[in-house]
Amino acid sequence: MPGNAIGQVFRVSTWGESHGMALGVLIDGCPPGITLNEEDLVQELKKRKPQGKSGTKRKEPDIPSIMSGVFEGKTTGTPISVIVLNKKMNPDDYTHLRDVYRPGHADYTYEKKYGIRDHRGGGRSSGRETVARVIAGAIAKKVLSLHNIRILGHTTGIGHITAETFNKDEIGNNPLRCADKKAAKHMLDHIQTIKEEKDSVGGTITLVVKNTPPGLGEPVFNKLDADLAHAVMSIGSVKGVSFGAGFKASTMKGSQNNDSFDSKNGHIYTTSNNAGGVLGGISNGEDIIMHVAIKPPASIGKEQKTVTRSGNPTTLTIEGRHDVCIVPRVISVIESMAAIVLTDHLLRQKINHLV
Amino acid sequence: MPGNAIGQVFRVSTWGESHGMALGVLIDGCPPGITLNEEDLVQELKKRKPQGKSGTKRKEPDIPSIMSGVFEGKTTGTPISVIVLNKKMNPDDYTHLRDVYRPGHADYTYEKKYGIRDHRGGGRSSGRETVARVIAGAIAKKVLSLHNIRILGHTTGIGHITAETFNKDEIGNNPLRCADKKAAKHMLDHIQTIKEEKDSVGGTITLVVKNTPPGLGEPVFNKLDADLAHAVMSIGSVKGVSFGAGFKASTMKGSQNNDSFDSKNGHIYTTSNNAGGVLGGISNGEDIIMHVAIKPPASIGKEQKTVTRSGNPTTLTIEGRHDVCIVPRVISVIESMAAIVLTDHLLRQKINHLV
Amino acid sequence: MPGNAIGQVFRVSTWGESHGMALGVLIDGCPPGITLNEEDLVQELKKRKPQGKSGTKRKEPDIPSIMSGVFEGKTTGTPISVIVLNKKMNPDDYTHLRDVYRPGHADYTYEKKYGIRDHRGGGRSSGRETVARVIAGAIAKKVLSLHNIRILGHTTGIGHITAETFNKDEIGNNPLRCADKKAAKHMLDHIQTIKEEKDSVGGTITLVVKNTPPGLGEPVFNKLDADLAHAVMSIGSVKGVSFGAGFKASTMKGSQNNDSFDSKNGHIYTTSNNAGGVLGGISNGEDIIMHVAIKPPASIGKEQKTVTRSGNPTTLTIEGRHDVCIVPRVISVIESMAAIVLTDHLLRQKINHLV
Amino acid sequence: MPGNAIGQVFRVSTWGESHGMALGVLIDGCPPGITLNEEDLVQELKKRKPQGKSGTKRKEPDIPSIMSGVFEGKTTGTPISVIVLNKKMNPDDYTHLRDVYRPGHADYTYEKKYGIRDHRGGGRSSGRETVARVIAGAIAKKVLSLHNIRILGHTTGIGHITAETFNKDEIGNNPLRCADKKAAKHMLDHIQTIKEEKDSVGGTITLVVKNTPPGLGEPVFNKLDADLAHAVMSIGSVKGVSFGAGFKASTMKGSQNNDSFDSKNGHIYTTSNNAGGVLGGISNGEDIIMHVAIKPPASIGKEQKTVTRSGNPTTLTIEGRHDVCIVPRVISVIESMAAIVLTDHLLRQKINHLV
Repeated sequence: MPGNAIGQVFRVSTWGESHGMALGVLIDGCPPGITLNEEDLVQELKKRKPQGKSGTKRKEPDIPSIMSGVFEGKTTGTPISVIVLNKKMNPDDYTHLRDVYRPGHADYTYEKKYGIRDHRGGGRSSGRETVARVIAGAIAKKVLSLHNIRILGHTTGIGHITAETFNKDEIGNNPLRCADKKAAKHMLDHIQTIKEEKDSVGGTITLVVKNTPPGLGEPVFNKLDADLAHAVMSIGSVKGVSFGAGFKASTMKGSQNNDSFDSKNGHIYTTSNNAGGVLGGISNGEDIIMHVAIKPPASIGKEQKTVTRSGNPTTLTIEGRHDVCIVPRVISVIESMAAIVLTDHLLRQKINHLV
Repeated sequence: MPGNAIGQVFRVSTWGESHGMALGVLIDGCPPGITLNEEDLVQELKKRKPQGKSGTKRKEPDIPSIMSGVFEGKTTGTPISVIVLNKKMNPDDYTHLRDVYRPGHADYTYEKKYGIRDHRGGGRSSGRETVARVIAGAIAKKVLSLHNIRILGHTTGIGHITAETFNKDEIGNNPLRCADKKAAKHMLDHIQTIKEEKDSVGGTITLVVKNTPPGLGEPVFNKLDADLAHAVMSIGSVKGVSFGAGFKASTMKGSQNNDSFDSKNGHIYTTSNNAGGVLGGISNGEDIIMHVAIKPPASIGKEQKTVTRSGNPTTLTIEGRHDVCIVPRVISVIESMAAIVLTDHLLRQKINHLV
Repeated sequence: MPGNAIGQVFRVSTWGESHGMALGVLIDGCPPGITLNEEDLVQELKKRKPQGKSGTKRKEPDIPSIMSGVFEGKTTGTPISVIVLNKKMNPDDYTHLRDVYRPGHADYTYEKKYGIRDHRGGGRSSGRETVARVIAGAIAKKVLSLHNIRILGHTTGIGHITAETFNKDEIGNNPLRCADKKAAKHMLDHIQTIKEEKDSVGGTITLVVKNTPPGLGEPVFNKLDADLAHAVMSIGSVKGVSFGAGFKASTMKGSQNNDSFDSKNGHIYTTSNNAGGVLGGISNGEDIIMHVAIKPPASIGKEQKTVTRSGNPTTLTIEGRHDVCIVPRVISVIESMAAIVLTDHLLRQKINHLV
Repeated sequence: MPGNAIGQVFRVSTWGESHGMALGVLIDGCPPGITLNEEDLVQELKKRKPQGKSGTKRKEPDIPSIMSGVFEGKTTGTPISVIVLNKKMNPDDYTHLRDVYRPGHADYTYEKKYGIRDHRGGGRSSGRETVARVIAGAIAKKVLSLHNIRILGHTTGIGHITAETFNKDEIGNNPLRCADKKAAKHMLDHIQTIKEEKDSVGGTITLVVKNTPPGLGEPVFNKLDADLAHAVMSIGSVKGVSFGAGFKASTMKGSQNNDSFDSKNGHIYTTSNNAGGVLGGISNGEDIIMHVAIKPPASIGKEQKTVTRSGNPTTLTIEGRHDVCIVPRVISVIESMAAIVLTDHLLRQKINHLV
């Protein structure tokens, strides 16, 4: 079975290449009766655009067109097709890369897999494909909002600099979406230094989901955390994911890591949240907390060693329109993937209540 | 869609509860002509059994019976059903847990999800379900061995103690399957201390897959690393997963993290492996390297605070047959899940070569 | 993707060979809280047993064991595994068929597909596999009964003899389950004649589903009639299926075939039912009516021409325990497949009602 | 799971409404390296256009645009998105139908299912959706042609007039694609009469697939005939489907219906083809033969009785641009659905050959 769809009930398929005609997404299984228009999508796409000075110089307008599945402003239950035409393709910029494997990119592996590849800007493996994910995420968020479920991602690290404090209001105040004002300043300075070095830098993101009802997740293989990990790990730059106490849980004792249950006014809750909101693969009603490791962008201006298709050594300097740091842009993609998974599970859970 | 199956082409479904009649696995899509008998399964099930003194006292013989899909010692391409009868059920041991939510367990969430739960030993959420996974993994490993693909997991941390050296031959020499002899000794001592405290402890595992051909993985959602993360995160005790440089990649520069390509005798390879063997979600022919965080077992002898089903506060002391540390046992489960994913993708890749 | 599962939400997987250890079915996605015990299954299995004198002499007790997914008499939402051990295997009876392709059977095609086959009684292609379908159907019927949906199949033709009248009460009065008393007698006589000729005979069945709520079916590919056709055509002996006016609709004018809408006390209905209860692939609340063509059993005592595996001509006389006419037995299988499809769609429709 | 996709490995998703912006199809899993351009699609779309005088007056140019998945004239293995913009929408023509349920159409059932419907020309339930199917079929046919598999549909009946002879060369000589010259003339006359009556008429189609290799089909539920029946029954106007001897097989004896095996120059074949090319759900190498019943179009100029949304009786006369007889147009859709199923199974069968 091919791999360009995700979700079982809220089924999202993406298509399109970086320098092809367009990018698009097809959503099958969106419930009927949801109000939806293109402005809803534009708002989310804005969050994915380059923030501040760390981003690519390719300036795509990213205008989404809803082609089907919406009638008189409401979803009809039929497939929703959304298209974004590519406007700023410069495929000729990539002619010199036709026979060279860029380090850290998927050039070599696509060729090994398919025997053929669209070398223009990475083709299908480009980060530009995430436009389609963010559109689907925007629609998923509309479904989740009917249940008051909210998703918030923020930057917790850039290179070796980590956020030490959490002030939610600060997130909107800096282009990195970091909740620690002081750290954010250091991070921005660091990115500037890296830029001058013609290099790139990675970082970490934490995602918080609030108001998830208990009961979402389908053991034993489609557990909520397993499906979230799958969805987020499918983003090109992600190299690691953990929940709640995460890798720290591996150093803890059971008596430290277990979250005690308590109750108040008939509502049962846990007094700590090392589990990150998921027990046995099912949401327990606490905040879902996920940590994500983002690698530095592979395209850098520094000279790199590599080989050509025929195995001959060569060097490569990428002068294109690339990002120094994509962490803030990836936040919107991670939020979108989480929204898709949560919507899917919200709908799947309906099946467990027959009568 | 329900969640008890994994794999698209090599399709594995598990069933059974900890204190029910049996555990079982159904495999649909195993290629015909593979030699297979019950002894193949017994060998892998042994690796899952309690190792040394850290394990549960429940001693199940775990005798697998192949009920279908094998004829005259070879798979026929039809579904393979394997059953393991439960022998050592003590369901009455759990009567006092009928109305209590154990911290760190899925009692509360199963009840919220299904409105009903089998409280005997965690029912379906028990680690005992992994017997079925290991059987499927054993069959997957037989498929992989035809392609010389080998999977090796080893313990890299127990609590705060981490392996500092890697000596492959050492792995078989200690019950923890740790490649650092000195660290292994410290780890065993630490586990003994934890046991005396009536507590439990977590750890970390690294998985290495050798000889994966380049080209496995189905972008953009069924990427090889995404599917591996999904499969491994579906194991009850796993709280985090990363590939190659993993979370460290988030602190690196692109020039450090990118793996340069080189070639030798016409064979193209990378001179480092920060990617962990996967580029753009597709295997690149290098070792696949995955790191996994294991939480401490939730069942501990220490007294814990919790609530009853009706929300009344109570305390709980678990006297049952539980593990102090399950890291070495989880290795076999992680290896099995990886084997299932790799077999699935090995078969899926065949579709990309039409003529 | 392998083919031994059906249903998206109510997911049914069958396994087992005619002369293997057992037959079994795994159901994932059955809603929790349904009362279920083995006696429920036994009742439906009885309907599948040879009726009167037309059936096989293999007398299997068909005792189903529920191995998982039921706790204290109720389904728990976890996978339900049911096993029926084979007791009356005579694999040696089939040794002479190891290298011969029986006409009308799947011997040749299984070998071409898999390169290997279990020749004992047809292995997986045997009608015995339908034991697993009937068990799943029995569980599906329990779900449907909560919504008062009822399924009734009856014989409408045996060979050239067709039922001309419909008296529902008559169905239970004859072993053929024919609603026309007079025709039933002729049919039984005809079967006796065919039996003496050492031949076999086919027939037709009509299935009626009552009380299906309007709205079931998922356009444009998982339409209710498409999924029913798929499910019923997957039964070995079925060669054709049609709905409502069926093939007669092809000879009609639109003004004759269209069913007019009318209403009574606020309830909208159609004044005729040429559509067979499905409009645009979605149930309209009228009776679902399906007609099914059953071929004569392929195993006959008469001498037949065929070839061996190496292509050498030979003759074949099948002396085994086979049915002269399987129409009445197939009714229970068709009912079961319909019940599985309807349960699946009943659950899938829940997803269209979000809030 | 939603229902707008078909195929497991060659995965086809359609979207779009009759009077929406566009119709489209997304194909995931097309093998890489297939030559493909828009002219390939135009050729197949022509066959779907109204033939002669029996068709609708809506004249859409149906210009397909390949938006992704093709690079330098070849498929790349990534998703192929094709779009056809609607040009001749007259949504206002349908305003009077907003609150009326047309007999024989899906107006009532879509509203019952989704609680909302796009009333313009049937929205998603319109025959116009089949544009997307024919495009996917065109691509599937390109894959099949690499294996020399050819699909041919022809008209065998219009109303009560049936073809009595088969002359393959005649099929291209008349707009009905009927292989019986004399019958074709009668059929055309009949259609003219029906047109003058402001009525519509149904018919039958036979589909023949040549050169299918033995071994395609995935028992026990994704049998080749079951999947073909499913795919064809998902077409709006189809009410019945049968294979080989079909409904006639139900009147036959086993000795008549069984196809004897013989061999010639080492090639094994059957001396008759009552099975229609499928044994035990797997292709046997003979021609696949399928018969399909097409109902008369529901839209007629004659006055019909119906009710409004609120249940009030009313009459309806449909003056729109509708077809009198769609049989010849449906041939191309049936061929397309068969091509999709066969391509899917051709690819699925690759998995059964591991090494």
